[in-house]
Amino acid sequence: MIPELKYNDQGLIPTIVQEANTGEVLMLAYMNEESLKKTLELGKTCFWSRSRQEFWVKGLTSGNVQNVREILYDCDSDTLLVKVQQVGKGACHTGERTCFYRNIELA
Amino acid sequence: MIPELKYNDQGLIPTIVQEANTGEVLMLAYMNEESLKKTLELGKTCFWSRSRQEFWVKGLTSGNVQNVREILYDCDSDTLLVKVQQVGKGACHTGERTCFYRNIELA
Repeated sequence: MIPELKYNDQGLIPTIVQEANTGEVLMLAYMNEESLKKTLELGKTCFWSRSRQEFWVKGLTSGNVQNVREILYDCDSDTLLVKVQQVGKGACHTGERTCFYRNIELA
Repeated sequence: MIPELKYNDQGLIPTIVQEANTGEVLMLAYMNEESLKKTLELGKTCFWSRSRQEFWVKGLTSGNVQNVREILYDCDSDTLLVKVQQVGKGACHTGERTCFYRNIELA
C-alpha cells in the first residue's frame, strides 16, 4: 500500500537513488504515481522522463538496471529515497558510476 | 567559482544532504543562487524556504546546523549533493535524525 504522497504541480516527486551497500548517492530522478507503481511491480526503478515525457525503466536498454531494496519517503511526504543494488557499470549516462562526479570548490 | 548550474523555473535547484561520515541521506531541500553563495560563505547549509519564501540557514535556531564538507553537482547540472557534518540531534524537524524515517512496503 502506497502512502499519501505529495506530488508537485507536474505530478512528479523527486527521487534520490542511493546504492544500498555503499551508501553512495547515484542520481536524482522523478517519479509520478504510475512510475512508482511500476517500480513496485518490477522491483526495478522506473522514472518519468521529463524530457521525453515517457516512462523510463532505468537501464532497460543498457542493462544497468537498479534492483530496489528499500523505498523511503520523507517527513513532508514530497521526496522519495530509493535504496538499490546498481547492476552494471553505473547509474550515469556518461559512464560514471554516480551522476555526482564533479564538485564545487569550497572557499 | 560556481559552475554553470541549471535552476528550475522558480530559480531553485534540488539539494540532497548526506552525512559525510556515515553516508546517511538526511534530507532534500532547495537552494537558489543566493543561498548557494551563502552556503559557500558560511560553510553551513543555507536553503531557500519555498513555504516561507526566505533564506533558511539550517539549524540557526535549533543549533542543529550542517557543516559543509563537500558540494557536488550532477551530470545535468540541475541537482546538488552536499556532504555535511550534522551537528546536534539530527536534520529533521520531527526530532528524527533523517527526514527519511518511513518506508513503503515492498511487494
